[in-house]
Amino acid sequence: MSKVSISACGLCKFSQSDDSVESIMIDAVKALFSDCPEFSKDDVDTFLVSTNDHSKYLGAIISESVGIFPQTAHTVEHLCSSGTNAIVSAYSYIKSDLANAVVVVGADKFDNPGLILDWDLSRSQYTHPKFWASIFTHAYKEKYNITQKDLATIPVKNHKQAQHNPYAQSTETYSIDDVLNSKSITDDLNLLDCSRSCTGSCAVLLLSENLAKSLHQKPVWITGIGQKTHSAGFTKIKDLTKPNSIISAGQSAFTMAKKDPRCVDVAEVHDAFSVFEPLIVENLGLTDYGNGMSYCHTLLDTEDNKINPRGGLLGAGHPLGATGVSQVAEITLQLQGRATSRQVDNPTVGLVHNMSAAATSSTVLVLET
Amino acid sequence: MSKVSISACGLCKFSQSDDSVESIMIDAVKALFSDCPEFSKDDVDTFLVSTNDHSKYLGAIISESVGIFPQTAHTVEHLCSSGTNAIVSAYSYIKSDLANAVVVVGADKFDNPGLILDWDLSRSQYTHPKFWASIFTHAYKEKYNITQKDLATIPVKNHKQAQHNPYAQSTETYSIDDVLNSKSITDDLNLLDCSRSCTGSCAVLLLSENLAKSLHQKPVWITGIGQKTHSAGFTKIKDLTKPNSIISAGQSAFTMAKKDPRCVDVAEVHDAFSVFEPLIVENLGLTDYGNGMSYCHTLLDTEDNKINPRGGLLGAGHPLGATGVSQVAEITLQLQGRATSRQVDNPTVGLVHNMSAAATSSTVLVLET
Repeated sequence: MSKVSISACGLCKFSQSDDSVESIMIDAVKALFSDCPEFSKDDVDTFLVSTNDHSKYLGAIISESVGIFPQTAHTVEHLCSSGTNAIVSAYSYIKSDLANAVVVVGADKFDNPGLILDWDLSRSQYTHPKFWASIFTHAYKEKYNITQKDLATIPVKNHKQAQHNPYAQSTETYSIDDVLNSKSITDDLNLLDCSRSCTGSCAVLLLSENLAKSLHQKPVWITGIGQKTHSAGFTKIKDLTKPNSIISAGQSAFTMAKKDPRCVDVAEVHDAFSVFEPLIVENLGLTDYGNGMSYCHTLLDTEDNKINPRGGLLGAGHPLGATGVSQVAEITLQLQGRATSRQVDNPTVGLVHNMSAAATSSTVLVLET
Repeated sequence: MSKVSISACGLCKFSQSDDSVESIMIDAVKALFSDCPEFSKDDVDTFLVSTNDHSKYLGAIISESVGIFPQTAHTVEHLCSSGTNAIVSAYSYIKSDLANAVVVVGADKFDNPGLILDWDLSRSQYTHPKFWASIFTHAYKEKYNITQKDLATIPVKNHKQAQHNPYAQSTETYSIDDVLNSKSITDDLNLLDCSRSCTGSCAVLLLSENLAKSLHQKPVWITGIGQKTHSAGFTKIKDLTKPNSIISAGQSAFTMAKKDPRCVDVAEVHDAFSVFEPLIVENLGLTDYGNGMSYCHTLLDTEDNKINPRGGLLGAGHPLGATGVSQVAEITLQLQGRATSRQVDNPTVGLVHNMSAAATSSTVLVLET
């Protein structure tokens, strides 16, 4: 079977703009083809849209709008991990010989549906993600004797890193005190511990091995894929410091890639709230359990931006359907050596972790040059 | 690469019920596992939902509700052909070794979004499908000198066939006069020329070759796949009697299956309105251009139910996200010899044609025993 590459990326600025989902998707696809001008739109077989928007038939509407006439087109929705779900699906079309070239474009607006878990009636009025994030944070702090000040490291680090990402929503750096003094949301969460939903889009081009090798951009191969949907509501997660979906998806991805987690040179992990960066790096095995917080402290102290170099969700913003696509785009740029002033030193193994709805489902991808 | 089978089907009655999309999806998956009691839910790797419903995260919600904990789960949307898009995606997960077993469940409610093409501003207030159906019908009548009475053959035949389908919405047969005397919608369309959106769900189980051979149900192999998204609006279709998406998807599917269209023993084609049955059989090459209407006349006269044996969309009803899944389920049952009183004689080659939005996109599948 052909290997599958990610070869080109179309990035757009994340913001609070009121532009329509359709228009920002078109912008991202235009940016994608500017990134690989020698690749013809006529060679795109499959066009996948990732969004939580209520619009229908966007696969046809957006592809027609940008001059692509694919065989397969449709929308993929799985809340905050819609983007990586669409990318895994794109991989499967190529791997199964149904396609040689797939465009995936993800986008959502700041006020799009998907943010609120309104189906989970067990939450009563506590449907906003801040409530579950607070419960996870409390559990993690208690288990590992972590303070709110410790956790403030994450937004400080990721907003700082975002300043090297021209597409990030964040335009400011913050101190530990800034985070601690930002509006108190709950006893375990300040405003700057939370990523912001925003308006954003991103596109990537996946190619079969032969096509990938014909482009001037260095191919980045998808070598590991792991996915797990554990449940719909997080009340089924037995240990909130060890969400099953993260562990399971990580193990599957590393097994498929035949890689040890400690080989990862650069990673995007789903830091929707501060606690998730140390929690995820532990559960993926990038560090031992209980060491996630000190691992992140060291990163900040040593100015090592290997985790969430584009600023993560905290710094770059979180336009739900675009998030997974932009995580994959970032790791692609890093592995291609095209990440400008945020470039990590010579990475060869990259990782993406994208999740939905209080870590009830996760996708992990291993990418390699 | 492993062959991919459809091995089991979960059917539910199509109706005008007000049941929620979630509850009818759960019903269909329960029916699916009743159809293959020896297959364990623990072995389901991927769970795909096909719907136009606005609900989010249904892949996780429905799988959790029925006791399935998949790796991959998400929703696929592409209007009326969401169902076959999800099935093609399921095929690709198995073919690419990401999965061995995939559940696809499709459902929509009678009042769900997706019916109205409200993005196409060129239509002004004429957003309802009846307007484009009328334009297609007019073009076909004029080109081939077809009368409204000729076209009435289709609903007469398909409502008659639906009486042998216990899951069909239709409970009545109609005469040619009944169709001609039903409410006039436009000069080219009477009420009984139109399929009805309804509440319905259907599920199918796709398996890898090894798993398929271990079940007691006869495997039905997917041997041909063709898809084409021509545009988003039908104003780009140059000849309304020869929609490009149908021709292109059909040719791709028959080429992949290495079959001649005349080999097809039983077919489900997307008869959303009367004109589409003769138009589609012509464009797929089941008969010559211009002979579609006489072909269908002969079927009615000879009581041959090889086209749309379950009653098609006209007889069975059209719950958008479920339609493609139920078409595939019908051809599977026919090829397995399990179609009870509507069984076609010993079919070995089956076909499904499912389309969206005025034939702007189509999926064609060739299924074989």
